[in-house]
Amino acid sequence: MNGAESLIRTALAAGVNVCFANPGTTEMPLVAALDSIDGMRAVLGLFEGVCSGAADGYARMADRPALTLTHLGPGFANSIANLHNARRARSPVVNIIGDQATWHLASDAPLTSDIESLARPVSAWVRKSASPDAIAGDTADAIAAAGHFPGHVATLIVPSDCQWSPAAGALASPQIAALPTAGDDAIRKSAELLRKHGAKAALFMGANALRARGLTAAARIAGKIGCRLMCETFPARVERGGAMPAIEKLPYFPEQALEALGKSDAVVLAGALAPVAFFGYPKVPSLMIPAGRECETLAAPYDDAAVALEALAAALGASHGAAATPAVKRPALPTGELNAVSIGAAIAATMPERAIVMDEAATTGLPFFGASAGAPAHTYLALTGGAIGQGLPCATGAAVACPDRKVIAFQADGSGMYTLQALWTQARERLNVTTLICNNRRYRILQVELARAGVTEPGAKARSLTSLGNPEINWSQMAAGMGVPAVRVERAEDLATQLKRALAEPGPNLIEMLI
Amino acid sequence: MNGAESLIRTALAAGVNVCFANPGTTEMPLVAALDSIDGMRAVLGLFEGVCSGAADGYARMADRPALTLTHLGPGFANSIANLHNARRARSPVVNIIGDQATWHLASDAPLTSDIESLARPVSAWVRKSASPDAIAGDTADAIAAAGHFPGHVATLIVPSDCQWSPAAGALASPQIAALPTAGDDAIRKSAELLRKHGAKAALFMGANALRARGLTAAARIAGKIGCRLMCETFPARVERGGAMPAIEKLPYFPEQALEALGKSDAVVLAGALAPVAFFGYPKVPSLMIPAGRECETLAAPYDDAAVALEALAAALGASHGAAATPAVKRPALPTGELNAVSIGAAIAATMPERAIVMDEAATTGLPFFGASAGAPAHTYLALTGGAIGQGLPCATGAAVACPDRKVIAFQADGSGMYTLQALWTQARERLNVTTLICNNRRYRILQVELARAGVTEPGAKARSLTSLGNPEINWSQMAAGMGVPAVRVERAEDLATQLKRALAEPGPNLIEMLI
Repeated sequence: MNGAESLIRTALAAGVNVCFANPGTTEMPLVAALDSIDGMRAVLGLFEGVCSGAADGYARMADRPALTLTHLGPGFANSIANLHNARRARSPVVNIIGDQATWHLASDAPLTSDIESLARPVSAWVRKSASPDAIAGDTADAIAAAGHFPGHVATLIVPSDCQWSPAAGALASPQIAALPTAGDDAIRKSAELLRKHGAKAALFMGANALRARGLTAAARIAGKIGCRLMCETFPARVERGGAMPAIEKLPYFPEQALEALGKSDAVVLAGALAPVAFFGYPKVPSLMIPAGRECETLAAPYDDAAVALEALAAALGASHGAAATPAVKRPALPTGELNAVSIGAAIAATMPERAIVMDEAATTGLPFFGASAGAPAHTYLALTGGAIGQGLPCATGAAVACPDRKVIAFQADGSGMYTLQALWTQARERLNVTTLICNNRRYRILQVELARAGVTEPGAKARSLTSLGNPEINWSQMAAGMGVPAVRVERAEDLATQLKRALAEPGPNLIEMLI
Repeated sequence: MNGAESLIRTALAAGVNVCFANPGTTEMPLVAALDSIDGMRAVLGLFEGVCSGAADGYARMADRPALTLTHLGPGFANSIANLHNARRARSPVVNIIGDQATWHLASDAPLTSDIESLARPVSAWVRKSASPDAIAGDTADAIAAAGHFPGHVATLIVPSDCQWSPAAGALASPQIAALPTAGDDAIRKSAELLRKHGAKAALFMGANALRARGLTAAARIAGKIGCRLMCETFPARVERGGAMPAIEKLPYFPEQALEALGKSDAVVLAGALAPVAFFGYPKVPSLMIPAGRECETLAAPYDDAAVALEALAAALGASHGAAATPAVKRPALPTGELNAVSIGAAIAATMPERAIVMDEAATTGLPFFGASAGAPAHTYLALTGGAIGQGLPCATGAAVACPDRKVIAFQADGSGMYTLQALWTQARERLNVTTLICNNRRYRILQVELARAGVTEPGAKARSLTSLGNPEINWSQMAAGMGVPAVRVERAEDLATQLKRALAEPGPNLIEMLI
């Protein structure tokens, strides 16, 4: 057994069996190990941002890490933006990066660079294997670090000579720490606050509070107390529709967020930190809970918020009470103009039971969340870290994790252009992903931000820097070029028709919505 | 004047007047400044790797820096791979990155990350502006650092509140240090070594030794002494054809490189470091100059190698002697099968005077360099840092720098997929770039490296990870989707016909070569 084989075997022994890869020469022993050892699925991405985004999507749905395999500093660098999103999603991801042979490093060959400096900003854990014999233990430690609840990005750098040299090959098992749970004090204080403010209190949720178990407890609490149920603007994963309660999503712009939270006199945080503005603006505070509101943390994102919510429900005598049920009905099939409202309705009206919706639709996506509260049970994934180009890769990884579910990639055009190579991986792996491109030919959000910055009459250069027109992009042609069949629609009724068709077909397809 | 305006005005005063941009919210004051101030061309890239690669190509051809403008850590991270190449090319590049407002940073909003840790591995100079008043001086310092011969990557991080706040606006001028030149001792020793070994000596060149002035001196030296003229495997820029001497390019694989340099008993380095292997392999040394060869450094890459070569020529009495002239004739138009040889011949046979060839053709590109020695005068650019995805962006930037010249992007398919978004920028800016895609449907170099690593009969997973088939990519459809007209060719004579047509047309076009 060599070092590379000890890595793959250790990962397999820990239950890690998918590798999103774009390897190079310094990873060839790992490619050989993947090739010769059964059990690890190797999924090629034609750009590393596809690999890291897919690993994030996989982890959000599978609740266990996949490997990414990237090539030296520059290859890894291409994966950083989506690792940033994975870090903000608190997804478990294990990055494996080859490095120059230990004795070749000092030669400063062209591809050599400081990989650790690149890895640290997106990784909770970074290590470079010091010897072939260390690789198995390092791999186990990386998996343990990634799996530490709720999830972290762990990065292991493996010099190529350590990969190809003989290794002891002991298959260490990851030692994952027990889940932290909320203390009695936090439960008691949260219960007091909710009792005191009743309907004027808000339960603000993130992390695993937004899974079925947490939401079921939250719904019982809301049924008993009458408090609002809210979630972060960009949650990593929310279970929605079906029996899940309807929840309010915090608006994106700070003025609206302050207004939304300002309607409540008290906020209890469950699996979420106190929300802050996405960006700083002149004369706008960072914290989105207005002054004078009482606030209590039931559970931080790194605590088990679902268990805490069940304990809170018990403390409030709401363990078995009636749960709040969605007040929103499933919308009718829309007709007429294609816009954010009709698109949101069309998706909500057609999505099948257990669909997974990856929402990187930016401005066009806003009405969908409300429209889909009454849809059949489904999972909603958001762009957690603001690094655009997450949607198509994340949908790809979610489809790898859940081959029996339908994935809808609801995708803004500007963001989609960052990592469009994901379509090719969807075609190769025959993944059940329906991509909906919002082709509005602009960075619409930036046009709004430009106006917020005081440029109400942009000149030629500002218009140019926020426009995707001239030339207009034809996503259908690009998708076909990567093996994904595509159609274009310009009317809401055609979108509904095409959605029904596309969602009934196996494999990937794309609908380009000309807005 | 606000901080953003002081930045743009300072850059313009220093002669920096192109900005390759993909801004976000934290760069909106800079977008407003670009919009309201005349003189700075703003070129949008739909992915940051396009911007940084274009800045590299621009700098190689213009010999002055462009700005890149990217969004926070993740946006900048997308530009790192091509900044790595720019660093290895020793290209002057000035990166401007917005950051969260100073008072908002501690809130750790979703897009916040450690930008400096990401920037350091690719930047010779990194600074974060501490106040609005500091921005003008910081900008001047960044431009000076980038312009320090032969060129560096400088990165300036500017918090958004420093951009939008009033600034003193003093327009400091960059203070660029004088060029270092070779010492008398290095010239004397190099002259002695060349005299002693004559035809058994090699002049091994990089950096500005490969520009017209350096090569003219080198050709006179070779004419007098009979020594070989060689260059690095991946030179940033070489003037070739026409009156330029034919030079040998060091082979890529270390066994061949050792053999090539082993034919000489002495090596004089001019603008180059002693060459090392691209990667470490078992039982292969790092240094590509075999043991027992005498070696002398006339000029390091950070010295003025062209001046040093002229001094060396004078020391050898070769200042006015006959220069070695190319022995290679321009090849005839090829016919028959499309392969690396016929493709190299077709380009060499059709390229116009003063063409710029960006070679990221990987394995398919190998015969071209030899075939084109007898072509009309042209400029050759290589993938300097091994971070693939450089070709299309670099060609884009070269075309911005040289609107009166024809740029040929000679491009491998796997590498091209990394930054295909560059085609859209070429269409928008109507750049004279003819892209030749080598569609061989594989990472051919990795198949070779896999065999070198001992996997002579790859299994399904190793074949899958090195193949771009299943599905096959249709580059013509993708190019058309981004507004670049494209054709596909399968025969050498068709390639020659299409090349002549494409090179005669204004604006971008693409020829997909099915190999």
